Amino acid sequence: MTVIGHIINGEQVNSHGRTQAVFNPATGSSERSVQLADADTVSQAISAASAAFPAWRNTPPLKRARVMYRLKELLERHADKICELVTDEHGKVLNDAMGELQRGIENVEYATAAPELLKGEHSKNAGPAIDAWSEFQPLGVVAAITPFNFPAMVPLWMWPMAVVCGNCVVLKPSERAPSVVKFIVELAHEAGLPKGVLNLINGDKEAVDTLLTDQRVQAVSFVGSTPIAEYVYQEGSRHGKRVQALGGAKNHAIVMPDADMENAVSSLIGAAFGSCGERCMAISVAVAVGGAAADQLVAGLSAAMTKIKTGTGRDNSNDMGPLITSAHRDKVRQFVDDGVSEGATLVVDGRALSVADHPDGFFMGPCLFDHVTPSMRIYREEIFGPVLCVLRAESLEEAMNLINDHEFGNGTCIFTRDGEAARYFSDHILVGMVGVNVPLPVPMAFHSFGGWKRSLFGDLSAYGPDAVRFYTRRKTITQRWPSSGVREGAQFTFPS
Amino acid sequence: MTVIGHIINGEQVNSHGRTQAVFNPATGSSERSVQLADADTVSQAISAASAAFPAWRNTPPLKRARVMYRLKELLERHADKICELVTDEHGKVLNDAMGELQRGIENVEYATAAPELLKGEHSKNAGPAIDAWSEFQPLGVVAAITPFNFPAMVPLWMWPMAVVCGNCVVLKPSERAPSVVKFIVELAHEAGLPKGVLNLINGDKEAVDTLLTDQRVQAVSFVGSTPIAEYVYQEGSRHGKRVQALGGAKNHAIVMPDADMENAVSSLIGAAFGSCGERCMAISVAVAVGGAAADQLVAGLSAAMTKIKTGTGRDNSNDMGPLITSAHRDKVRQFVDDGVSEGATLVVDGRALSVADHPDGFFMGPCLFDHVTPSMRIYREEIFGPVLCVLRAESLEEAMNLINDHEFGNGTCIFTRDGEAARYFSDHILVGMVGVNVPLPVPMAFHSFGGWKRSLFGDLSAYGPDAVRFYTRRKTITQRWPSSGVREGAQFTFPS
Amino acid sequence: MTVIGHIINGEQVNSHGRTQAVFNPATGSSERSVQLADADTVSQAISAASAAFPAWRNTPPLKRARVMYRLKELLERHADKICELVTDEHGKVLNDAMGELQRGIENVEYATAAPELLKGEHSKNAGPAIDAWSEFQPLGVVAAITPFNFPAMVPLWMWPMAVVCGNCVVLKPSERAPSVVKFIVELAHEAGLPKGVLNLINGDKEAVDTLLTDQRVQAVSFVGSTPIAEYVYQEGSRHGKRVQALGGAKNHAIVMPDADMENAVSSLIGAAFGSCGERCMAISVAVAVGGAAADQLVAGLSAAMTKIKTGTGRDNSNDMGPLITSAHRDKVRQFVDDGVSEGATLVVDGRALSVADHPDGFFMGPCLFDHVTPSMRIYREEIFGPVLCVLRAESLEEAMNLINDHEFGNGTCIFTRDGEAARYFSDHILVGMVGVNVPLPVPMAFHSFGGWKRSLFGDLSAYGPDAVRFYTRRKTITQRWPSSGVREGAQFTFPS
Amino acid sequence: MTVIGHIINGEQVNSHGRTQAVFNPATGSSERSVQLADADTVSQAISAASAAFPAWRNTPPLKRARVMYRLKELLERHADKICELVTDEHGKVLNDAMGELQRGIENVEYATAAPELLKGEHSKNAGPAIDAWSEFQPLGVVAAITPFNFPAMVPLWMWPMAVVCGNCVVLKPSERAPSVVKFIVELAHEAGLPKGVLNLINGDKEAVDTLLTDQRVQAVSFVGSTPIAEYVYQEGSRHGKRVQALGGAKNHAIVMPDADMENAVSSLIGAAFGSCGERCMAISVAVAVGGAAADQLVAGLSAAMTKIKTGTGRDNSNDMGPLITSAHRDKVRQFVDDGVSEGATLVVDGRALSVADHPDGFFMGPCLFDHVTPSMRIYREEIFGPVLCVLRAESLEEAMNLINDHEFGNGTCIFTRDGEAARYFSDHILVGMVGVNVPLPVPMAFHSFGGWKRSLFGDLSAYGPDAVRFYTRRKTITQRWPSSGVREGAQFTFPS
Repeated sequence: MTVIGHIINGEQVNSHGRTQAVFNPATGSSERSVQLADADTVSQAISAASAAFPAWRNTPPLKRARVMYRLKELLERHADKICELVTDEHGKVLNDAMGELQRGIENVEYATAAPELLKGEHSKNAGPAIDAWSEFQPLGVVAAITPFNFPAMVPLWMWPMAVVCGNCVVLKPSERAPSVVKFIVELAHEAGLPKGVLNLINGDKEAVDTLLTDQRVQAVSFVGSTPIAEYVYQEGSRHGKRVQALGGAKNHAIVMPDADMENAVSSLIGAAFGSCGERCMAISVAVAVGGAAADQLVAGLSAAMTKIKTGTGRDNSNDMGPLITSAHRDKVRQFVDDGVSEGATLVVDGRALSVADHPDGFFMGPCLFDHVTPSMRIYREEIFGPVLCVLRAESLEEAMNLINDHEFGNGTCIFTRDGEAARYFSDHILVGMVGVNVPLPVPMAFHSFGGWKRSLFGDLSAYGPDAVRFYTRRKTITQRWPSSGVREGAQFTFPS
Repeated sequence: MTVIGHIINGEQVNSHGRTQAVFNPATGSSERSVQLADADTVSQAISAASAAFPAWRNTPPLKRARVMYRLKELLERHADKICELVTDEHGKVLNDAMGELQRGIENVEYATAAPELLKGEHSKNAGPAIDAWSEFQPLGVVAAITPFNFPAMVPLWMWPMAVVCGNCVVLKPSERAPSVVKFIVELAHEAGLPKGVLNLINGDKEAVDTLLTDQRVQAVSFVGSTPIAEYVYQEGSRHGKRVQALGGAKNHAIVMPDADMENAVSSLIGAAFGSCGERCMAISVAVAVGGAAADQLVAGLSAAMTKIKTGTGRDNSNDMGPLITSAHRDKVRQFVDDGVSEGATLVVDGRALSVADHPDGFFMGPCLFDHVTPSMRIYREEIFGPVLCVLRAESLEEAMNLINDHEFGNGTCIFTRDGEAARYFSDHILVGMVGVNVPLPVPMAFHSFGGWKRSLFGDLSAYGPDAVRFYTRRKTITQRWPSSGVREGAQFTFPS
Repeated sequence: MTVIGHIINGEQVNSHGRTQAVFNPATGSSERSVQLADADTVSQAISAASAAFPAWRNTPPLKRARVMYRLKELLERHADKICELVTDEHGKVLNDAMGELQRGIENVEYATAAPELLKGEHSKNAGPAIDAWSEFQPLGVVAAITPFNFPAMVPLWMWPMAVVCGNCVVLKPSERAPSVVKFIVELAHEAGLPKGVLNLINGDKEAVDTLLTDQRVQAVSFVGSTPIAEYVYQEGSRHGKRVQALGGAKNHAIVMPDADMENAVSSLIGAAFGSCGERCMAISVAVAVGGAAADQLVAGLSAAMTKIKTGTGRDNSNDMGPLITSAHRDKVRQFVDDGVSEGATLVVDGRALSVADHPDGFFMGPCLFDHVTPSMRIYREEIFGPVLCVLRAESLEEAMNLINDHEFGNGTCIFTRDGEAARYFSDHILVGMVGVNVPLPVPMAFHSFGGWKRSLFGDLSAYGPDAVRFYTRRKTITQRWPSSGVREGAQFTFPS
Repeated sequence: MTVIGHIINGEQVNSHGRTQAVFNPATGSSERSVQLADADTVSQAISAASAAFPAWRNTPPLKRARVMYRLKELLERHADKICELVTDEHGKVLNDAMGELQRGIENVEYATAAPELLKGEHSKNAGPAIDAWSEFQPLGVVAAITPFNFPAMVPLWMWPMAVVCGNCVVLKPSERAPSVVKFIVELAHEAGLPKGVLNLINGDKEAVDTLLTDQRVQAVSFVGSTPIAEYVYQEGSRHGKRVQALGGAKNHAIVMPDADMENAVSSLIGAAFGSCGERCMAISVAVAVGGAAADQLVAGLSAAMTKIKTGTGRDNSNDMGPLITSAHRDKVRQFVDDGVSEGATLVVDGRALSVADHPDGFFMGPCLFDHVTPSMRIYREEIFGPVLCVLRAESLEEAMNLINDHEFGNGTCIFTRDGEAARYFSDHILVGMVGVNVPLPVPMAFHSFGGWKRSLFGDLSAYGPDAVRFYTRRKTITQRWPSSGVREGAQFTFPS
């Protein structure tokens, strides 16, 4: 049994104490375990980061960026291995993992632009013969705490921008899928990242709490569920840290009667069931405007769902892999049971699915509900599984009210050809990331990722331009040089 | 006795219940009182702001900005009255009030640039035939809670930027100097601000707590002392609000041996004793590098201090007015007593000063301590009065360590001619606002104001570019238009 | 007879020599004449500008901007007089002049943002302990040469941005409508512009040629016809000047079959016939896609045109005033004659129109041609009069090819509801300013104005962000301070 | 004898007709020749670029940027070969070539930021329910014409930014050092650049003139001597092209009496004699302020110059290689002869230097003149060889006047410790690139390169942010969607 440890100050570190099994969700078996750092080990990582900071902050941004150029090469060179590590611990299909990695690499690419992104604003003659300018200085030690569902990508949302801004990082990934991030941290060192600039800690609540309370940690970036995000935000803030904590979602797609229905159906199939619905940007609700559109949509979806192939992620001919744990699979099934009890029409039922050659895998087939209402639990809560709910509205306004009244505000999408509908929707919807005929409107790495309402706690979004502001502290310098006849005389600086 | 009430939805509102006397600190008498809003009154103001929001958010930024153009005119036209209101309730000398107002107007000027400042980033072909752009949408209702020491300026740091970004505001100024802000809010309405966009509430902790807990308030900007700032930040954050809370300071000036000593002395006199030291950017500590510089500095300062004229702020020939309350004057005197007890050398003693024609005013003369050490209370705590402490260091590094070890990190300054000293200092000092031969490095309105360490709680600084980011929520829109032969045929949109 | 002279160094200057009559085109009579500066007078203005430059360049941008705040107030206060001056010399209807002035004021408003717009880019640690930043320094003396058709607005496109960037200006407006710009230059001085910063010269080719050849003039902004624009660009460039020269246009609107036809018709009536078609952004060609749309469009336009009221611009109940000169009116009539000869269908004929109470005014009624083809002279050339040509295309692609093959590329517009059509059109059309359901897509003052192809000679567009780049020269400063033990010792700067 | 041809549409092309010998300046012998394209061959390259444009402009900037990431890898992998090609045809020492290449790679790095750099500005609600945004669209086919002295770097200043902006390029390098650029163009194709996007033409005036006159070429970037730069600018502008043409220089360093003299001397040695003075940023004039400083400086320089080792560039122990041709060597010698005749003091005379093992190489030793005056030819003209002139001034003002009166304004530098001197100098000097204690203030790739006065013809500087503006055309789109009840009804788009 392989035991996955930590990387502190560029060295592999094995702490004593607690460990936890890491499962392959396609087989249901476990061949690895992960160490769960205690407070001392976390503190040691913070110390390593603190020690590396003075030299790293003085390193020109261009040199910091060059580590990212090399990391990009290494990530591309080792893409297959990275995807296998993702698939074996998360379960998603290999080419879905490749998509995840690609998005992660795009954040590394954006980080190469550090010299451009870190420019301050310079005001010549802010006052008479007075200049002023801003510098965006690194914070010091920052922590990143990341979820299981994008084990390669979400860490790459965070630490590359943090380090090119001059910070040193303690990264704590999900203990359910720890291998891929460990490999990538090793690649970062191979790419030339100095020791101590990026430290990896595996762990659970004890590690998290240590990061949230240690006075040396200046900032925390977090992605996970809303209750934990809120806890991280409150605790971190209370201890004087800058925090951005991204939480849950219930992303709606509105299908207008003028939409290209074929395109809408195929987009929704991918957006709802890709990665088994375990994405914070997954579409879990479709709202059809008008009865005719609703009937067409449900017919189209149920037909398309018959073609979805579920099985091990190692086989790229599959569309969907397993869920992350058996407990989570059971929880998703319970949601479906509840939906039926509450009166929704279960048009496609994937609960009973079993995968022949992987009888112990945590599989479940895709499910489609029609006639869902806002009061149902399957509508109110985030399921994080392959369950799509269809609601019916009489107008765009009614459909938008559903979204605006929901607890979450991460992503949303409209399918239409109409310019006015697109503009009205994107203007007035209380959601941070909006797609027009784009089902998964994840912002590109050169924009920033952030939901509204209870999908994000904090002022600034993740990655992109906001990450520069999050990972730096503004300093404003105002400078005047008193006149001493410097222009006239050759001898001015020599005191008599 | 005039009773100062509230302005809600553009109307003068008098709440019942508690009031508090407003004093003229130069005379020690009170001719006005101010109402202290209860929770219901505050809630009414929030309701008015909420109701005004939908129309105001849809108003083009250029039209919102035009209210600021007109407000600037009105502020300039009524400058004398504004300054008198400041002087009569705060005590500062009239032309000091004029300086304050000027800085406030500069924030109004910056707010006129809203159409430029609110531009989002547009990516053509973010992906193949996919465009993406960001919009910075207003938050909704935001609160501003401001201190007594800049009763005209600090509110103008906040609400003009908040409203040109499309928000509606509830403003709670200090209950000690409420008249001037009330007058300015009236001018804002005269300038064309629609009713409900800016609401004024007078009050104390009850009002503050209502603002911090009401779910409809999206954000809070605060300036005050560090303990209250921390409380506001914690409470506001805990209730899901975006908060920026600016607190106390202990601003050091370093005087290098190559400094133009005459310039340093005259700069320090103004920076330490202007506004009676009741400024969060006041210099309260001077660190001389080298014994010769220290001796020169103390000699220069004590000579210059004999010329400082203290008296009523209505007389522009005075340099310093009274402190804000008699209680505060007593507290400052106590600091000076403590300094003497702890062993510092009191070179100039202003404790006994009295002003002939204003025997009941809250006056105190300027004080200078030499040989102060880091352990003394007069060094560790913010005095907020006319007391300047001199410390002596052997090197720039030692002087900088003093600053970097202090609890606060608001402003600082170095006096030198040397380019390397200036650059090393501004690079490595853990302070947000840095002056080089500029004793009060308050950033211009087109930069942002923010301290480091326990001088600011929150991610983003006040006013300037950061205010745009603070008062808006990022929305990213990703748009694709599926191909339907639109270029080829004339009939494309008509269904058969 | 009033004789209109020059303003040099803040003083009214009357040169000797040539003058030219200024007509009221509504009455056909002349009560004013304008002096035509000879080379010496122009040189005197350049000298005044040169002399004012050193102090003005050193004036902080914020102080330069404040002149613009005051100018905005004065322009608003004197709006009625300004509009009357426009109407009496240009002919356009008063409220059309008010629209022109409003657009001019918006450029003054944008110029108030100078402190924000002039910020350079600051790179801390561009190299090891090396900082670098850019400054955008003013050029020196710049010239602005403006046309008759927007006598108030086009000068305000240019000189306010030029002066807030720190330049000094010699402005030569059209000799046909010189009064309004003279009045505005006087207001600028009243607003506090120092003498010599803005100088006004009236004149013709002799003045233009002097500006194009004098070595002290650093840059020229020009708006006029394409042949003159090309000449100005060639001559100015040849003499080492930075030049932006805006020329003619032939702006097409595409009407798609899904357009809201009522809206399209009413938009086109305003865009084609407003200001008698004497606008470089006027729509002079409408391309209907599909025969049904074409028939609807022509029917709608001809019906609407019967309601257009032509008469003196002093009467706001009129829709259209006279053309600028009788010669120009005759030229436009000749174009219509030619169109008939070439075989286009003259659906509405305004050639014979006369205005009862102004028999000598230079009036002409609106004309509509259908079935125009690309080879006709009325299609190829800019008419600059109230003549709208309709072409018929079978597809969007065909309609776009017409535009892309035309000599000019100033503005264009599409009427549609379809998102894909709007995006494809705006992406691929070879035109600088594109409207989607916006017939006159003149960029707001916070964007920049510039056509493509032979509508603009030069690299940078007029006003908005490009104006900052045009009116400044980039300077990049790279700074390093060699280490000399400054941090360690107190005595470092004193040589032994 | 190797014959170096062209690369058109990704293919090696050998034109018939004229060729020219390519020399190894260290040996004086020639083993390669280069083809000189006739007009037809150039036209063929322009055709290839035109054909590649439509697909390339539609390629997302991120994908265009990814070619640059790969090119960076290839340039680093083949660095040794690249440097050998530079050294064998230009003569500079290998590690000087490596420095050149490094600077070139930095431009490739900057080009990877294309998705960030090409963002337009988006104005939500520019007017009521009207949005407006700018796009920076590629120009089409652009030409780059580059000099011999940085055969690897200067092309990399130009075409990478041009192509990531979406343009297709015809590149004409110097015919004296054609091999390295050919190799790099091959690497660009290996990196994935599509055929036709970058085309290489070798040639002389015939090729240049074809590029300057062909209507399909939209823009020209040029670096060379001032007379040719002016010709390129005039001719290109006359044919409707956007042109930036960088010319000659005479870069002064001012040495203040408070400068660290040791640092100044060692900096000047490198800046004056590196690359044999054949750099447009070389320091060719040192102005000492005060007689003491001058004496120290001349003594220091002449001592240091005795240690300069001249010889073949293949040997990294040499400091200086040969000049580019024997004719140029003779021309530089003639300058030195003239300096002696005109009365300057030739302190160090390198005219007679010969290199033992390379008797036919175009070598010349470093020369130092003292007591040079402004009227001498060695001061007025650009020598482009290893000759440093020292002038003596009594004050900073006098030294600055020398610079401001000179024809050129490319680079300059001051050596001082004094903040005021540095600021006054950088503010008032009429030079585009300014160093403070930095002898070669070449802007980093994330800033832009451009001289003032007759060192640059055109509005925009080379590379960096200005390159984005130069290689794109601004398009402004204004969009409104007319209301048609889209929010209320489900059926809105279906006509009855």
